[in-house]
Amino acid sequence: MKISIKPILSIFLVCILLNSCDSNPKDKIIKRPPNVILIYMDDMGYGDLSLNGHPTIQTPNIDQLASDGQKWSNFYTASSVCSPSRGALLTGRYPIRIGLGAEKKRVFFPESIGGLPSSEITIAEMLKNNGYQTGIVGKWHLGHLPEYLPMNQGFDYYYGIPYSNDMDAINWSLKTLLGKPDINMWQVPLMENEKIIEKPANQFTITKRYTEKAIEFIDKNKDKPFFLYLPHSMVHTPLFASETFQNTSPRGLFGDVMNEVDWSVGQIINKLEKLGLDKNTLVIFSSDNGPWLMMQEHGGSSGLLTDGKGTTWEGGMRVPGIFYMPGTIQPGTITDIGATLDILPTIAAFTNSKVPSDRIMDGYDLSPVLKKKEVSPRNHFIYYRKQEIYAVRKGDYKAHYITETSYQKDNQKKILETPLLFNLNHDPSEKYNHATEHPEILKELKGLVENHKKNVVALPSEMDKYPEIK
Amino acid sequence: MKISIKPILSIFLVCILLNSCDSNPKDKIIKRPPNVILIYMDDMGYGDLSLNGHPTIQTPNIDQLASDGQKWSNFYTASSVCSPSRGALLTGRYPIRIGLGAEKKRVFFPESIGGLPSSEITIAEMLKNNGYQTGIVGKWHLGHLPEYLPMNQGFDYYYGIPYSNDMDAINWSLKTLLGKPDINMWQVPLMENEKIIEKPANQFTITKRYTEKAIEFIDKNKDKPFFLYLPHSMVHTPLFASETFQNTSPRGLFGDVMNEVDWSVGQIINKLEKLGLDKNTLVIFSSDNGPWLMMQEHGGSSGLLTDGKGTTWEGGMRVPGIFYMPGTIQPGTITDIGATLDILPTIAAFTNSKVPSDRIMDGYDLSPVLKKKEVSPRNHFIYYRKQEIYAVRKGDYKAHYITETSYQKDNQKKILETPLLFNLNHDPSEKYNHATEHPEILKELKGLVENHKKNVVALPSEMDKYPEIK
Repeated sequence: MKISIKPILSIFLVCILLNSCDSNPKDKIIKRPPNVILIYMDDMGYGDLSLNGHPTIQTPNIDQLASDGQKWSNFYTASSVCSPSRGALLTGRYPIRIGLGAEKKRVFFPESIGGLPSSEITIAEMLKNNGYQTGIVGKWHLGHLPEYLPMNQGFDYYYGIPYSNDMDAINWSLKTLLGKPDINMWQVPLMENEKIIEKPANQFTITKRYTEKAIEFIDKNKDKPFFLYLPHSMVHTPLFASETFQNTSPRGLFGDVMNEVDWSVGQIINKLEKLGLDKNTLVIFSSDNGPWLMMQEHGGSSGLLTDGKGTTWEGGMRVPGIFYMPGTIQPGTITDIGATLDILPTIAAFTNSKVPSDRIMDGYDLSPVLKKKEVSPRNHFIYYRKQEIYAVRKGDYKAHYITETSYQKDNQKKILETPLLFNLNHDPSEKYNHATEHPEILKELKGLVENHKKNVVALPSEMDKYPEIK
Repeated sequence: MKISIKPILSIFLVCILLNSCDSNPKDKIIKRPPNVILIYMDDMGYGDLSLNGHPTIQTPNIDQLASDGQKWSNFYTASSVCSPSRGALLTGRYPIRIGLGAEKKRVFFPESIGGLPSSEITIAEMLKNNGYQTGIVGKWHLGHLPEYLPMNQGFDYYYGIPYSNDMDAINWSLKTLLGKPDINMWQVPLMENEKIIEKPANQFTITKRYTEKAIEFIDKNKDKPFFLYLPHSMVHTPLFASETFQNTSPRGLFGDVMNEVDWSVGQIINKLEKLGLDKNTLVIFSSDNGPWLMMQEHGGSSGLLTDGKGTTWEGGMRVPGIFYMPGTIQPGTITDIGATLDILPTIAAFTNSKVPSDRIMDGYDLSPVLKKKEVSPRNHFIYYRKQEIYAVRKGDYKAHYITETSYQKDNQKKILETPLLFNLNHDPSEKYNHATEHPEILKELKGLVENHKKNVVALPSEMDKYPEIK
């Protein structure tokens, strides 16, 4: 048999031209599944970024992420308070399904003995099963007894605080919360893996140290696929900024803290670029819920949206949603509906990981929108407060069945006989009620809620588990 | 005497190297005084641009102007309604000084027989005296008897409507204003120079035609310095978009109209670039006042600011302020205070024109901020409603002496015994009153108002001049 040299020569030439047939380590990096970095803010509102029009907060690094990536302007968190929001983010399931649908207590407190059930599958577990190195740097708030800590939910590494930065307070009052920052007023511990390494956590340097630890984690895992979850403790009150950032913003201390968080985002992106990983890392930026309005000038802004944290008005649940992966994600603003519930299935699609198939998932894979600007697979969203459905959105329209203001002393819960109906794309501030004009839309939305309810079994709230008083 | 050849040779070489000693016509263009284009929106709020965070309005061309130029986020119009706002813009003087401090009527109506006094010196007159070709394409609203038309206030060319697009109504009602667009409901004339050329103006095509006329004006005057004032009729209710832009925005008709205006801005910039004039043209973009909230979903949004058109809350008087001149204006966001009153002296500085010296001017030259990012020469602003001072701002703080909601049926005018005091840089939404904590700031602000009053002589309102009823 005669062997022709021509095909071999051709392959050789093609290899030279494309420079792609050698075992260049950079090539290997490009071909491995993408890394994932999920940056999650605490109590940062829709209106707290310069890209969303805040007049005196400047967030050039986050703005850049949004302009080079996709900015979603109708993006929702699954709960307007901390623990359920985080549980839903990490599992892709509504809080009510995972023991985080509040009954009395709305979040975990230092005395709580419950946590996110170990039977739930987190993004970290999903990615770990797919060979990823997984780390969390920041605030956990899904149970702090040993069995509930991040290491038991798929994380290889943990550095951060176990619950909110205003807990373990010496004297929880607006005076101490809004006064001169004093780390000794808040006895919240700082943990590394399963150990407390500092108490009280020095919150002045916490954003800086989170950033350093995040960069260390990236550096250490640069040769393997990694997942870094970076839930900042800020801008939850009490506010702390490191010395470099104090008195740097016309917005006051809140602006200083935003400046430091924005710097942190810039540091992460710089690191990815230096390592040549930026084109192979999916970076997601969002917030756990709207601004904590009772904190006055120490709380954030929901911009043009109504109300804030704790409510099912848009200001409580609509949050910034930014997706960034240059060369893969098509830049632009997406006005379709998305939710933090969709982050798990979206990450699964990007990383070719397996979405849990033995349970009901509430998220949608947004990758066709991110990669090809297709129509969002999510066309509706259900607004829970505790275990009740307060409102529902489908397409342009949102119906409110129950309204209630932020959790303050003058809470006013109103069960509405006739729902309110707003066209959110025309009227994002929820001012102009169209209920009487559109009975057919109200009917359709009601049907959607009824169908949803058929598939929901409420678990008892883990947040109401407290030690028995003897 | 011995003549050395060396200096001559050196000059020759420098000429070759710099390519700047010939009489290249492009060089001549660069060296002539800059053109000025002033784009002024009608009833567009702070929150109606995507750069200021509107979730469903997309204004890529205006956003680009802001990101390549300077965006001022604490920028004020001198009045929260139309005619006085425009008079102050064109003269650099508070409305009360120029016969536009309202007594009864807040703006000019079709029956009005008054106008901006011819003794006032407009930007057009200032620039005409300096050899500029001057044109206005759009809405005038400073008097429509022959003696008050633009040609008598320094403009060589006029194409547009003489007053608001909802005037000369067949039946002025919310039903017609918010109903299906119908040009025959509004008998407003379209004028060219001093002649009515169309009645009713076809408002469907008005933004398109303004854009074409603006581009024609630029083309015609490309070889001379020119001033083009482009006060759009939109987004004042009733809203009209040309066919190309109908049903293009998730924000509905208001968004369609914003899309068309944004397209128009893009056309103007493209034209400048094609003619090589972009680096020698100062482009300014702003709005006459905040959104007309009583127009519901046909009205705009003041974003995170309180209230809208007609009020002295921030939503009524804080407007987008964008300055663009690539290579000359330093890009960035300016959080210092500026005002439309400053536009005349700023244009004077850019064009080396003479600011009127025989009268009190209320504007400041902002060119040191635009060119070198120096501190703004304006550190205060006075909020008038009709002839009364309702509020004053100096630095971070704004004191309200009188509050009143938008002009609707339920207007509530309150003269406050103790003023309200807000830190606008921390609290742009004017929620948290600091009056009791800062008596010294209240005192300082009161002093500023007293000093201002000493220099103000109120002229009788031109807007209250009506024909005698016989």
